[in-house]
Amino acid sequence: MGSAFDSQLEAQGIVLPLAAAPVGNYVGWTISGNTVFISGQLPLEDGKLAVKGRLGADLGVEEGYRAGRICGLNVLAQLRAACGGDLGRVVKVLRLGGFVCVAPDFVDAPKCVNGASDLMVEVFGDAGSHARFAVGVASLPAGAAVEVDATFEIRP
Amino acid sequence: MGSAFDSQLEAQGIVLPLAAAPVGNYVGWTISGNTVFISGQLPLEDGKLAVKGRLGADLGVEEGYRAGRICGLNVLAQLRAACGGDLGRVVKVLRLGGFVCVAPDFVDAPKCVNGASDLMVEVFGDAGSHARFAVGVASLPAGAAVEVDATFEIRP
Amino acid sequence: MGSAFDSQLEAQGIVLPLAAAPVGNYVGWTISGNTVFISGQLPLEDGKLAVKGRLGADLGVEEGYRAGRICGLNVLAQLRAACGGDLGRVVKVLRLGGFVCVAPDFVDAPKCVNGASDLMVEVFGDAGSHARFAVGVASLPAGAAVEVDATFEIRP
Repeated sequence: MGSAFDSQLEAQGIVLPLAAAPVGNYVGWTISGNTVFISGQLPLEDGKLAVKGRLGADLGVEEGYRAGRICGLNVLAQLRAACGGDLGRVVKVLRLGGFVCVAPDFVDAPKCVNGASDLMVEVFGDAGSHARFAVGVASLPAGAAVEVDATFEIRP
Repeated sequence: MGSAFDSQLEAQGIVLPLAAAPVGNYVGWTISGNTVFISGQLPLEDGKLAVKGRLGADLGVEEGYRAGRICGLNVLAQLRAACGGDLGRVVKVLRLGGFVCVAPDFVDAPKCVNGASDLMVEVFGDAGSHARFAVGVASLPAGAAVEVDATFEIRP
Repeated sequence: MGSAFDSQLEAQGIVLPLAAAPVGNYVGWTISGNTVFISGQLPLEDGKLAVKGRLGADLGVEEGYRAGRICGLNVLAQLRAACGGDLGRVVKVLRLGGFVCVAPDFVDAPKCVNGASDLMVEVFGDAGSHARFAVGVASLPAGAAVEVDATFEIRP
């Protein structure tokens, strides 16, 4: 703790969840050189899916945005673990991948993934602006509404 | 301008669009070391979607291929901006990610993404051959037919 | 041959397929520095799709897991080619991307992608644990049940 980014979290009252344990033979993050790869994160709160369902059928854009933001919080929880607890090592958010569970006529996946994108810029400022994609998919694990993976640059 | 790759564009009469402004709290590209990450690009011409709809329902493979190519042109526009206007800094096309909006029985996503892949090889020659994936998804932003993201290696 | 990882393959009776030739203007893998990008691999055996169809409609989880594992074998075949035949150059599995062809109410894509994840840990041990995503998509090339792409760190 103690970095400008951690202070930013605190000042904005943003509390990160515990990094979720993967449900399979994989891990929450890997590091290669200065690059951190974060596994696809679901909208988990206290270990339970906070937003389940399909955009354009069960859920509207506001709930999708909220799901995107919670995915983003889980991404940051994994990232903090990858940084040994010190978000001050983060140099740049490089890329987010956004998958939204949709009915086929729902074309606003970007508005849902914005929940994660806005969070990155809130927490990291200029270093938070990132490349990304946003697409609508047929289903997500356990019925989640949104899944977000991420790539970051950190200091060694 | 002035690099072999720029000459190649000109010789083939390929005109790149303006790099599209992202519609959210993200950017068209990020750079980490020698790696450029390009955001998912839609088939935009003059700021409007040139190819909308669903492959296997509203659209056939030829239109999908055309959509893939226009996505590729938008990828190159972002890449040129990332390189400060000089495509001569490009070392290698590393990877394309291709998402195609499909009816569930349409299994020719690769033939659509080929529009972007062929463009990379036209412009960059051997340096244009790349790893990629191609998948069929339920929906894309604003009803786009294809979305392509990309990763490149450049010189500093 | 001769590395610990190759011995591991042999000891477990795992035989890699030939690296599949891409069906388009792309390649099976690219390298940038120490990073290898592997193209999305289908569940091919002897050049034919071994597992076709849709999870939650034509196929159950066991068949999905098997498809995931065969995709993983094809990933390793490409990786070995990228390493000039010597898997001993592999430092780390960084990331898998898992796409599963689903009926919309099938929410167990992770259980299918586990087929590839488990294989990585079998072959590479601790170096095999990786970041990943798993999503359900509307269609995959040629009717494949699963597609897996991958990123690895290798020694020069």
